[in-house]
Amino acid sequence: MLNKEIFNKLVDKDKEIVIYKHISAVLEFDLETAGSKSSGEERAIQLALIAQKVHSLETDKNMLSILKELGVSESKKEGFGESDFEKALIKNRYKVYLRNSKIPNEFIGRKEKALSLAYDKWVQARQTENFPLFAPLLKKVVALEREEANFIKEEGQGLYDALLDSYEEGMTSAKLDKMFGELEPKLVEMVKKYSTKSIKDDFLYKNYDKKKQEKFALGILKDMGFDMDRGTLSLAIHPFTSTLGSDDIRITTRYSDPSLIDPLSSTIHEGGHALYEMGASSGEIKGTSLGEGVSMGFHESQSRFYENILLRSPMFWNKYYERLQETFPENLANISKKEFVEAINIVKPSFIRTNADEVTYNLHIILRYILEKKLIEGTLSVDDLPDEWNKLFYKMFNLKVDRIAEGCLQDVHWSSGLFGYFPTYALGNLYSAQIYNQMIEDFGGIVLFEKSFEEKGLLPISEYLNKNIHSKGGLYTPEILIKRITKKALDGNYFTEYLNKKLFTLTN
Amino acid sequence: MLNKEIFNKLVDKDKEIVIYKHISAVLEFDLETAGSKSSGEERAIQLALIAQKVHSLETDKNMLSILKELGVSESKKEGFGESDFEKALIKNRYKVYLRNSKIPNEFIGRKEKALSLAYDKWVQARQTENFPLFAPLLKKVVALEREEANFIKEEGQGLYDALLDSYEEGMTSAKLDKMFGELEPKLVEMVKKYSTKSIKDDFLYKNYDKKKQEKFALGILKDMGFDMDRGTLSLAIHPFTSTLGSDDIRITTRYSDPSLIDPLSSTIHEGGHALYEMGASSGEIKGTSLGEGVSMGFHESQSRFYENILLRSPMFWNKYYERLQETFPENLANISKKEFVEAINIVKPSFIRTNADEVTYNLHIILRYILEKKLIEGTLSVDDLPDEWNKLFYKMFNLKVDRIAEGCLQDVHWSSGLFGYFPTYALGNLYSAQIYNQMIEDFGGIVLFEKSFEEKGLLPISEYLNKNIHSKGGLYTPEILIKRITKKALDGNYFTEYLNKKLFTLTN
Repeated sequence: MLNKEIFNKLVDKDKEIVIYKHISAVLEFDLETAGSKSSGEERAIQLALIAQKVHSLETDKNMLSILKELGVSESKKEGFGESDFEKALIKNRYKVYLRNSKIPNEFIGRKEKALSLAYDKWVQARQTENFPLFAPLLKKVVALEREEANFIKEEGQGLYDALLDSYEEGMTSAKLDKMFGELEPKLVEMVKKYSTKSIKDDFLYKNYDKKKQEKFALGILKDMGFDMDRGTLSLAIHPFTSTLGSDDIRITTRYSDPSLIDPLSSTIHEGGHALYEMGASSGEIKGTSLGEGVSMGFHESQSRFYENILLRSPMFWNKYYERLQETFPENLANISKKEFVEAINIVKPSFIRTNADEVTYNLHIILRYILEKKLIEGTLSVDDLPDEWNKLFYKMFNLKVDRIAEGCLQDVHWSSGLFGYFPTYALGNLYSAQIYNQMIEDFGGIVLFEKSFEEKGLLPISEYLNKNIHSKGGLYTPEILIKRITKKALDGNYFTEYLNKKLFTLTN
Repeated sequence: MLNKEIFNKLVDKDKEIVIYKHISAVLEFDLETAGSKSSGEERAIQLALIAQKVHSLETDKNMLSILKELGVSESKKEGFGESDFEKALIKNRYKVYLRNSKIPNEFIGRKEKALSLAYDKWVQARQTENFPLFAPLLKKVVALEREEANFIKEEGQGLYDALLDSYEEGMTSAKLDKMFGELEPKLVEMVKKYSTKSIKDDFLYKNYDKKKQEKFALGILKDMGFDMDRGTLSLAIHPFTSTLGSDDIRITTRYSDPSLIDPLSSTIHEGGHALYEMGASSGEIKGTSLGEGVSMGFHESQSRFYENILLRSPMFWNKYYERLQETFPENLANISKKEFVEAINIVKPSFIRTNADEVTYNLHIILRYILEKKLIEGTLSVDDLPDEWNKLFYKMFNLKVDRIAEGCLQDVHWSSGLFGYFPTYALGNLYSAQIYNQMIEDFGGIVLFEKSFEEKGLLPISEYLNKNIHSKGGLYTPEILIKRITKKALDGNYFTEYLNKKLFTLTN
């Protein structure tokens, strides 16, 4: 029998850690949206202080003694407690304890500060297309990531796998190699098949009034079930979702691109993340470390489900296109729904990951996965990165990278120390297609699914996701969660089947 | 000789405390400007956690041992170190240690949470003009303030004086009684003398384009020397200044009033606070607890100097009126500079403190001082507050309060536990006039002062304030600082002389 009094101590301590993490999120959100020009350096110090505080709470003697009183030991690390909540919290806290207590507290502060400098230089280097400016900083980040991986890796675990596991528990490079190895040729094949067709899409890049765009996107967010009392939509330089409190979940968007679909899809994408956070922050797990998305891959599955599977589907625009046309008659009056849906599903290799279509997107990820793995394993040096990137890019996309800002300097991730994070974007796509397949089955087949959407809109879909995924928060590992929902392990074929079916239908 | 190594430990610890205070400021700024509707309660918990952390750092054994190693003891509390910086930091830290170690850590959290609830209810009560809704919460706040005063008061010190000293070191109710006692009849006399004149001011309350207002105000802020790299101006429900980092000092404004002068004067007011914070955050005191305004009264002296002494002076508009007229020809083309300056200096008793003119403003403060002192001393009950307010208001202003939102529910301060804070507003006015008098002398007399302004604008004035006040931060107590600048103790007569001279000139 679990000692409830001790368990409650663990819950309290866990909640305190979460409060500090929310405070971190406030510091980051504020820096991104409202900071003064000179505030960056000092904010990094503030963030480092909170990160060190979190690390202390996660690894102090008090934490260990609570966990030991609950029964954990080196030889038995999980299986304590009766409810899923108890089991997951004890298991996770011990896992974090074991991992993070191997990281010295001073390292946390040192890393935060180095990352802040690296980020600043990356911004400059990208603007001025000057890789040598960034290279020394990136070397430092790679060294720090390797240092951290060396701290935390378990016996027999590779350096890259140790980092990967922090973002996607249970995932390994062996599994990724297999999955991505099967995926890549299929995607290359699809690019060949679908990118040749010439489809008109110039109307997407005309001038669209920003206020009207915002109103339209907000309408969809509300239809999705985004709770305007517990969240906000605001402007920022980059679109992102941030949880600043259990009831304070914010998404940001930007309208800088002269495009209708980029701001809309990124708002709906972030809306998917926000729904997950709102749903996870409920019931007994609210305010605990389990009250959030279980993994980065699962998180991305939710954002991409709304952004791609729904927002780029013919079904979606059967319901919404009239409203869109009425909002922007000046650009869309003469564009048919069919033309519009074809335009937003164009398959075309391009340089920038964030602008990629659904087919080429995962190729961008596979490329990054291959390179970052080598960087961490020490088989690729930072100085050779641009050349390696360009070579591999040419091989996969048949395009020559001329500008480094469109090559290996395009993404913020490496400057922010997010090694092992990129694969979760592709995993998100794979999860989402497998979940979609199951959802259709659970709605009684595609006809009933589409009928439900026609009659009741997005809400039944959001409710399905909430019930099966969002409300579960971090109770189950990604591997267990996908099996609970779909009765199968993650399988990349659902994704290629989904895409092939959609593209075939659209082009025939 | 001071042990520098130990002193540096104190500096490091002090800076850590300041970082946590900046983090608090971020949490508050974000709540005011960007929080979701449901975020308040949880933000209060976050703030309480940081407040408790600050309290722990201020009062832990490590702090005491550092201070003792530097020489402090119950019998000798100051005078350690060679430089003013060393002396002030050691003295202040020991003072804070002695005071705050008498407050239990649990009290800090309890108070923060109670204040958050009280604030929410105050907002509701003011909106619905329902005092009984707020009364139980205000009783709780008064009880908490009394509890805190009982913890921190020194031997022989009254409860109210213990609170007052936290905002204005060295100030006592005995001194205030004397100063306010002399001031009140003079102000009442001035109201009688100047409020009878009928002056046209309807043009101030026409429609003024907000973008143009912002541009005009930003122009003045820049002329004042507001560093746009180290600060921002943004929108919020209330105008305020907040220091979120040594290089991240923000002011907010609002344009909700259909008035030209309210938003402008409040922006310039906050600009005065911001200049003080920017100036104090420099040199060796930057990033320490001395790198900020020395007291609330001195802070207010800087904001009011710009807002009233400069912005409401004929001299100011000699330079700026043409620009204002050109910005708003639709409303000001036919208004002469003289008419404009008269209009912004109208003396007229009214209900709302924040809208009050320079003469009646201090009367509003004296009224609050009298009442809050009684509440803390226990000679006035919360239930009797509205009646007492209305009676005293009638006596001082010859106006009958009909709406409680225009009476004792108008200010946020009491709901936020700011007892002992109101007097600093009046002190700010008094300091500012005395500093102004000295400034004229140091510029070589009024003629040369006005010539300097005509030729060089606001910057030499800001430089004077920076050199004599801002850059000194918290190195000297308010009492010492005013003497260093003006060679005299604070004397309320400078204020009434300044006002009488201006109003006499304007009306003759």
